[in-house]
Amino acid sequence: MIKVAIAGPRGRMGQEAVHTIMKHDKMELVAVLDHREIARNLADYELFPTTYNVAVFTDLKTLFEATTPHVIIDLTTPETVYKHTKLSLEYGVRPVIGTTGFTDEQLLELTNYAKEHRIGAIIAPNFAVGAVLMMKFAAMAAQYMPDVEIIELHHDQKLDAPSGTALKTAQLIQENRPSHKQGHPDEKETLAGARGADFDGMRIHSVRLQGLVAHQEVLFGGEGQMLTIRHDSYNRGSFMSGVKLCVEKVVDMEELVYGLENIL
Amino acid sequence: MIKVAIAGPRGRMGQEAVHTIMKHDKMELVAVLDHREIARNLADYELFPTTYNVAVFTDLKTLFEATTPHVIIDLTTPETVYKHTKLSLEYGVRPVIGTTGFTDEQLLELTNYAKEHRIGAIIAPNFAVGAVLMMKFAAMAAQYMPDVEIIELHHDQKLDAPSGTALKTAQLIQENRPSHKQGHPDEKETLAGARGADFDGMRIHSVRLQGLVAHQEVLFGGEGQMLTIRHDSYNRGSFMSGVKLCVEKVVDMEELVYGLENIL
Amino acid sequence: MIKVAIAGPRGRMGQEAVHTIMKHDKMELVAVLDHREIARNLADYELFPTTYNVAVFTDLKTLFEATTPHVIIDLTTPETVYKHTKLSLEYGVRPVIGTTGFTDEQLLELTNYAKEHRIGAIIAPNFAVGAVLMMKFAAMAAQYMPDVEIIELHHDQKLDAPSGTALKTAQLIQENRPSHKQGHPDEKETLAGARGADFDGMRIHSVRLQGLVAHQEVLFGGEGQMLTIRHDSYNRGSFMSGVKLCVEKVVDMEELVYGLENIL
Amino acid sequence: MIKVAIAGPRGRMGQEAVHTIMKHDKMELVAVLDHREIARNLADYELFPTTYNVAVFTDLKTLFEATTPHVIIDLTTPETVYKHTKLSLEYGVRPVIGTTGFTDEQLLELTNYAKEHRIGAIIAPNFAVGAVLMMKFAAMAAQYMPDVEIIELHHDQKLDAPSGTALKTAQLIQENRPSHKQGHPDEKETLAGARGADFDGMRIHSVRLQGLVAHQEVLFGGEGQMLTIRHDSYNRGSFMSGVKLCVEKVVDMEELVYGLENIL
Repeated sequence: MIKVAIAGPRGRMGQEAVHTIMKHDKMELVAVLDHREIARNLADYELFPTTYNVAVFTDLKTLFEATTPHVIIDLTTPETVYKHTKLSLEYGVRPVIGTTGFTDEQLLELTNYAKEHRIGAIIAPNFAVGAVLMMKFAAMAAQYMPDVEIIELHHDQKLDAPSGTALKTAQLIQENRPSHKQGHPDEKETLAGARGADFDGMRIHSVRLQGLVAHQEVLFGGEGQMLTIRHDSYNRGSFMSGVKLCVEKVVDMEELVYGLENIL
Repeated sequence: MIKVAIAGPRGRMGQEAVHTIMKHDKMELVAVLDHREIARNLADYELFPTTYNVAVFTDLKTLFEATTPHVIIDLTTPETVYKHTKLSLEYGVRPVIGTTGFTDEQLLELTNYAKEHRIGAIIAPNFAVGAVLMMKFAAMAAQYMPDVEIIELHHDQKLDAPSGTALKTAQLIQENRPSHKQGHPDEKETLAGARGADFDGMRIHSVRLQGLVAHQEVLFGGEGQMLTIRHDSYNRGSFMSGVKLCVEKVVDMEELVYGLENIL
Repeated sequence: MIKVAIAGPRGRMGQEAVHTIMKHDKMELVAVLDHREIARNLADYELFPTTYNVAVFTDLKTLFEATTPHVIIDLTTPETVYKHTKLSLEYGVRPVIGTTGFTDEQLLELTNYAKEHRIGAIIAPNFAVGAVLMMKFAAMAAQYMPDVEIIELHHDQKLDAPSGTALKTAQLIQENRPSHKQGHPDEKETLAGARGADFDGMRIHSVRLQGLVAHQEVLFGGEGQMLTIRHDSYNRGSFMSGVKLCVEKVVDMEELVYGLENIL
Repeated sequence: MIKVAIAGPRGRMGQEAVHTIMKHDKMELVAVLDHREIARNLADYELFPTTYNVAVFTDLKTLFEATTPHVIIDLTTPETVYKHTKLSLEYGVRPVIGTTGFTDEQLLELTNYAKEHRIGAIIAPNFAVGAVLMMKFAAMAAQYMPDVEIIELHHDQKLDAPSGTALKTAQLIQENRPSHKQGHPDEKETLAGARGADFDGMRIHSVRLQGLVAHQEVLFGGEGQMLTIRHDSYNRGSFMSGVKLCVEKVVDMEELVYGLENIL
């Protein structure tokens, strides 16, 4: 039985994580950290069922000392996450972190500390196992099929294009193929933008439509063939398989790993 | 048995058409028109099997008078196609035409002539039944799901983007929905072109990759759902079902129809 | 402003419908019918915000007499829906019904009554506009591309295969093409079931996977080409566009229409 | 410049391979082996352009002695391929073999011989790089997303279902996940075969439609998400990138490798 604590139980991801650990038969939710005191027990939160008998703390040290979890899942803000992570490592509690926002110096310090003290830690900007596999496979495929375009599709409330996942995918592909400009050298856009955004010679297309959630496909063209890797995210549950995987893995690890792709 | 003549038997489409009619058990290829005299009989062309016993003519009048076809499939150039069509109608031979390049005046004249003399004629810029159905359905769907994006995918030797079919699809959609700008009003491209080409507020994306042939999908987003209409063209054979359909239909028609969509 | 009543406000579809009408700026929710008295006003239901000031009735006649709605959306059970529909028509309230379960005699009676009294009514077993368009287009395409297979994909909690939508699609296709057995006459399954279920010579394949919602694609093969029509339903919101469309349409109708496809 | 010989130049794959090597600027086609004497030089074959000045042999020893190739691409029949391969290794000519049909004993013997003499050799039942990547990724993904279904789509002249590639993919998945039965335990087929073929608890669906070529998608379902890996083969050219890759790799190898996936 892995004893788990969760920091940030009221956020969208936090709520899902609470339910996920409560339902898991090999994990036990021993405590949550809430920055604001709502109640002393999760069972008294309106957000959760009255059967969720889990102690609530507002101070991380007190939490660690009172409940000695093996793992802490941190879903709080970039502002607090560095302090939390450092303290966790010092207490020998293995952190699983879903927030980005570390500086390079902080990352280096935490990495060195974890290595020295042989404590596992995972920082995962993206917990969706399927999305991380898509990126990993895309990077591998680019070595053998270097001509690639990315199409990402999201709901029409998304403000930025391309998506962060598309950019991250493109970077991984860039690192795994010789840089080159795709398409016919003389190709012409009769309508500006038709050929999408240029990233190191490959093209990225962003579709925004009502009703969509979060989808991406990476298309690799080759002589007489096409390879497509696609990920569809239908709801936030897609992150929970990654959270569970990280909790399982981190207890046996002896260093800090950045990115889910590096434990897959 | 429908007696068919073909003009332009040596072009890529022409060759396919010759084979198509030769193999059809309810059509008979009675003659071909070649602008250059290669041989007097198709059987003597290197391009065709020696079993293709079909008379070759270089003059259309002589062809009509000698072989009295019911239908002529014209796959020649825009330069000659008007003259051919006019002559066909005068001889009561129903034309099926795969070339564009008529002026509005010519179209009007031919349309009126066909109506007066109650002779069927079909001008079809796109013979691929599946592609024409895709466009027709897209136009219909846009009335109920007006938020739409088009992704067209072709081999990387294609010079223009977007494709003609994508533009034609977009026009049909435009005619069937209230004009409006899609996407979030505050959306931002962090890489120029990511959101594709803008056509009346909808977006068109052109993918170009080695190995692809000719593909298009039209995506309609709605509350909690997406409708996708996709056409894949794998080879030139995709046009032949349209050619056969036109030959079958034109013999019973009494006017000129422009666009395969109008006989489907 | 269209005055709307909803029968069955506490079911899953009912709740969505309540929110949909409350948010609509050209419709007004004047009453709901609940078979059990929870409270006299929706605002007092735990399920709804306290701002939802809508009268609740347990008797339909009283509801009609007190609030005189133009339209009633009926999302109750097959047991009550016939009685409700009949009463609605008698009171001149146009019914929009999302439940099936009428006998042929009942349907005929309601249809005749609506016609005689020139009152609009819609019975829609499927409210998802995209799904209904998919079926409609599939039926049309089958006339020109009669070789078709259906792949439907659902979450792995679904018990029956194929889905009702797949069967309905197959029936529509059957009515629009000459019956014929597809595939090579000598094809062999080396693993039983590989070629899917046989329906009038076409094949239906049912995919069941964790995480999926409700998806279907209809594939039409032709010489050198494929046409695909796909619908993805991501959540119950997909039905709401159909509900709204029905309410808008039914106020101008003068007969009973069965099936959303017949008003599209 | 890699000196290449080709055995079996007149088969479909053989012809493609001849063109591929002739056009390659870092490979030279020094000889072909034909089991029947058509002509002494490829330039005299009707199948090839008169510019293809390549010596033809009917005996492999003579070919090796006269032209000392670095690599031989063997596209002949299972009957001859073992003898060819053994002889190639003895002459120090690295074989790239696209035919299966070795017995286990033969494979072991060739593998040992290659190892002892440190000569590279590749036996590749499937040369399509994209298809092999699809299988490799499917095997990797199954470790993290063990719920999977396979849909393979081919033209309707294909006799067997499921395809060899689908079966091979399923085996690789089986080796990489705990065996388990997917779908709801109480699921029911109302039409037999709807749920496809059962292979170790996962399902395989075979679509056969006119116009299709060779396509496969592997679908992985997970909490709130789906990962899809798809390969489309549009023509025989899809094999040629694998042939080229093998020729490049084999010259630096010192053992026999079975399966393209093991050099990717």
